[in-house]
Amino acid sequence: MEENSCNVPTNVGFSVPVRVSRETKPDASLVNIGGVKIGGSEVIIIAGPCAVESQEQLLDTASSVKNGGAKILRGGAFKPRSSPYSFQGLGEEGLMLLRSARSETGLPFVTEVMDTRQVAMVAEYADMLQVGSRNMQNYPLLKEVGLTRKPILLKRGMMATVEEFLLAAEYILNQGNDQVILCERGIRTFETSTRNTLDLSAVPMLKSLTHLPVIVDPSHGTGLRWMVPSLAKAAVAVGADGLIIEVHYKPEEAICDGYQSLSTNEFAILMIDLKRIALAIDRDISLP
Amino acid sequence: MEENSCNVPTNVGFSVPVRVSRETKPDASLVNIGGVKIGGSEVIIIAGPCAVESQEQLLDTASSVKNGGAKILRGGAFKPRSSPYSFQGLGEEGLMLLRSARSETGLPFVTEVMDTRQVAMVAEYADMLQVGSRNMQNYPLLKEVGLTRKPILLKRGMMATVEEFLLAAEYILNQGNDQVILCERGIRTFETSTRNTLDLSAVPMLKSLTHLPVIVDPSHGTGLRWMVPSLAKAAVAVGADGLIIEVHYKPEEAICDGYQSLSTNEFAILMIDLKRIALAIDRDISLP
Amino acid sequence: MEENSCNVPTNVGFSVPVRVSRETKPDASLVNIGGVKIGGSEVIIIAGPCAVESQEQLLDTASSVKNGGAKILRGGAFKPRSSPYSFQGLGEEGLMLLRSARSETGLPFVTEVMDTRQVAMVAEYADMLQVGSRNMQNYPLLKEVGLTRKPILLKRGMMATVEEFLLAAEYILNQGNDQVILCERGIRTFETSTRNTLDLSAVPMLKSLTHLPVIVDPSHGTGLRWMVPSLAKAAVAVGADGLIIEVHYKPEEAICDGYQSLSTNEFAILMIDLKRIALAIDRDISLP
Amino acid sequence: MEENSCNVPTNVGFSVPVRVSRETKPDASLVNIGGVKIGGSEVIIIAGPCAVESQEQLLDTASSVKNGGAKILRGGAFKPRSSPYSFQGLGEEGLMLLRSARSETGLPFVTEVMDTRQVAMVAEYADMLQVGSRNMQNYPLLKEVGLTRKPILLKRGMMATVEEFLLAAEYILNQGNDQVILCERGIRTFETSTRNTLDLSAVPMLKSLTHLPVIVDPSHGTGLRWMVPSLAKAAVAVGADGLIIEVHYKPEEAICDGYQSLSTNEFAILMIDLKRIALAIDRDISLP
Repeated sequence: MEENSCNVPTNVGFSVPVRVSRETKPDASLVNIGGVKIGGSEVIIIAGPCAVESQEQLLDTASSVKNGGAKILRGGAFKPRSSPYSFQGLGEEGLMLLRSARSETGLPFVTEVMDTRQVAMVAEYADMLQVGSRNMQNYPLLKEVGLTRKPILLKRGMMATVEEFLLAAEYILNQGNDQVILCERGIRTFETSTRNTLDLSAVPMLKSLTHLPVIVDPSHGTGLRWMVPSLAKAAVAVGADGLIIEVHYKPEEAICDGYQSLSTNEFAILMIDLKRIALAIDRDISLP
Repeated sequence: MEENSCNVPTNVGFSVPVRVSRETKPDASLVNIGGVKIGGSEVIIIAGPCAVESQEQLLDTASSVKNGGAKILRGGAFKPRSSPYSFQGLGEEGLMLLRSARSETGLPFVTEVMDTRQVAMVAEYADMLQVGSRNMQNYPLLKEVGLTRKPILLKRGMMATVEEFLLAAEYILNQGNDQVILCERGIRTFETSTRNTLDLSAVPMLKSLTHLPVIVDPSHGTGLRWMVPSLAKAAVAVGADGLIIEVHYKPEEAICDGYQSLSTNEFAILMIDLKRIALAIDRDISLP
Repeated sequence: MEENSCNVPTNVGFSVPVRVSRETKPDASLVNIGGVKIGGSEVIIIAGPCAVESQEQLLDTASSVKNGGAKILRGGAFKPRSSPYSFQGLGEEGLMLLRSARSETGLPFVTEVMDTRQVAMVAEYADMLQVGSRNMQNYPLLKEVGLTRKPILLKRGMMATVEEFLLAAEYILNQGNDQVILCERGIRTFETSTRNTLDLSAVPMLKSLTHLPVIVDPSHGTGLRWMVPSLAKAAVAVGADGLIIEVHYKPEEAICDGYQSLSTNEFAILMIDLKRIALAIDRDISLP
Repeated sequence: MEENSCNVPTNVGFSVPVRVSRETKPDASLVNIGGVKIGGSEVIIIAGPCAVESQEQLLDTASSVKNGGAKILRGGAFKPRSSPYSFQGLGEEGLMLLRSARSETGLPFVTEVMDTRQVAMVAEYADMLQVGSRNMQNYPLLKEVGLTRKPILLKRGMMATVEEFLLAAEYILNQGNDQVILCERGIRTFETSTRNTLDLSAVPMLKSLTHLPVIVDPSHGTGLRWMVPSLAKAAVAVGADGLIIEVHYKPEEAICDGYQSLSTNEFAILMIDLKRIALAIDRDISLP
């Protein structure tokens, strides 16, 4: 494809690459994760712990979020951590635990992959591969996940413009994989009272520019457990196709991100509130 | 008051000044604007044009937003403009038109004041004085409006942290005026597809730290007319006590900010949607 | 002047208003502050305390910075402080002390004005009026200082673009006062190890777009005393026409900004280093 | 190493990891790139094209920058590009051309590596491996280059704090490779007239916290050819141990970044100016 034919002009100050552009494909895309479809009228909730820590922790949390109404499980086996001395995840053992949790609960799962050399292996286990915020412009990784036929959850870089976010997704589609979900998870600003600044205006902006589904991560977006419910409700109201929420069966004992994880009980209460918001905008969240 | 006794510690990384702190006054404050109370269970909508342009424009827009469900009228008579060559507002003539519109519609109105020398005069006309984003740290102005007994709408500086925002409000309360409403209106970030980045997490953050009401301006927050409804809904869902929305009877002919102003018809439709969101979080918006 | 004839196109993404534009006036402007000219080949150093505290403090510091090679004295009488409970300055008494220091040392002085109602009074005392960072878009203040015939030191807003900075200066020139000096003093970014991020690229950018002199404030730009010398040297190397540096005779006892103020001895040493840099770029700093 | 024993407290608001900390190793580290040492009193200039395009382009540019005084050649064979449709680099062919240029000129070279699978191969060719801005938090890549015994040029992420930058370097040292050079290359801010905002205060900050050498990239830092010389001079004045500058024998024909590349003639002139600044701070740049 010639470079000058691969972008579609818009009226927001930049062009959008051709494969992700809604001009090219006006209908919203549905992405199928082990039978759960994101991008339709139902708002899909992904939930689970930041990191897989143990069988007990994962199974307990997984069955609780399923009972609360989550449709997909999240959990990290390979963890990107700012410090080399922090817990780096259980690795393949974590993937095996996630597979067990799927067998127990029936929930498909998403987990992060960081290294091109691990993509094939992680794809053997997971129902959806996550490319994390720090790797949004890791082009070899984008190309590698683009060669799989797994759905990809692409998180916005904390420093990435909407334009760059769409270009990163284009890398994946350009390899032949169009099963991509975009996730707004907060951007870095001067404000420090929250961990990041959740940019909810990115949701309608992205949905106007691309046919891909857009979800929101209020846990990383705020970094504060007590604030997650408010921003989760706002994210549904603004039009997100789904949410990804950190939940832990014992948040105060979590190895990572406990301060931003909901308890399973808080999650169950939130789901009832979210359903009310979804109905108020003519969408739905099905609860058990 | 001694400086070391005037701040209340919090767990979000900074102290909160004593008069605005919710520790000092746990109950939410109600601010009364010509009979309309902000800070209670009803979500109050303020609407009107960016700038007062003419009697026809103002009266037509004012009666339309009243019919749509707005409880307070907005309109600028003194306009802060980046360029000295842009329209600077009608001045006192604009205030007289706003007074006429109040007589016609019964809607109290809010208008911006920029100069300490004009505070007394503007306070003779207006039901609420606005201190704009660019003046959030204009301390002589904060002190001067603090000496009036008018409600003050204090907009967050586009560069101001939550901590600085609360300190600015404290300047007003410290002069004896506790009728202050805080307004999140978008902060400046690296993202340029929207005019500003609306920081909706500031709403629960502010409401946890202060007893003052908090409203949101989705018009300046996004700068894009088509995006205002989505963010307005999110702002109600996140817990704002009110919204301030730019509406113009002929947006395409507006002297300023037409690209972010709703038409009166779009506003009326939005109000119905907002009421649904308000009910979904056990609040309300009363419609005519 | 018609709005569409008042901006000069550039190749950096925005237009520059006509009166500040270097297209309109290719020669660099010289601004004369009580006989000291800024904008020529000599790099002019302005120094003194953040706030005027007492006669002893001011006179001691003033005579020391003069001996070090400063050509202009700085000192705040009206202080913009984030908290209403912080020291707000000595007011007119501070201006009288500054006048005395001028008599003693022969140094002209610059001091900040914040309120339109004080402009005439401050202009009676001062050789140059400063409009501070927080007031860069306080348009009534810009217009008021534009009506004086005093040189104006306009500091860049901590979140103002270069374009907005030039538009703010245009407000002053548009009132008939073309004696304006621009000051880069650090912008607000996500980085928190320094108080602000000193944007030295703004210096050549401004000098290419406008004929006005451009100086740098490394004290507010870094907020760290030990770092001021390095950034002061860089500012001279990058092409600044002058520097404004906070110096205090007893930094550890300063009422405000002591942590970023040089001692008089540190200042004297720095001046020798700065002269070497100035000579290396074919400019000069004359020392006593 | 236990996590709580692996950080050294500082007085700038965060701890510094133990291996990069200057507390642990007070003496400045020298990094040896094919016989050229960075971190001593001489300021080392790295120069060359953004991307390797052809033998002619590379050899011509390499011999010119050598004649100008550059000690190390730069050139990209694997290019991280925002768009999948942009030129992605010549790959291994580019590495072979760089090897030829080294044979011809005697200049050691640095080139970027993006994929863990390519580290061993690139390390066979290059004298120094670059980890680019977008990969600063690509932890598998940091670990992989940490396992080589090649010097590593680690560029600061465009939205990375100084703290995160040091933690990223620690990942490399923690694998046993202490030959790391840090490079400030501009951070992302709200200002858009320059491509990035070059954060020169990061240089003294880093040098106070770590024993590793610190260099500056004024080409990416400004994104504007005409501005590179000013910021290069400032970077030397502020205390950088070296610079990395994009130079192209025909900038107007460059496949990438031509607008920010110096011509070989501009580079030669700049080197003479830089030497003068270096001498003014008691350092040196040796010219042929």
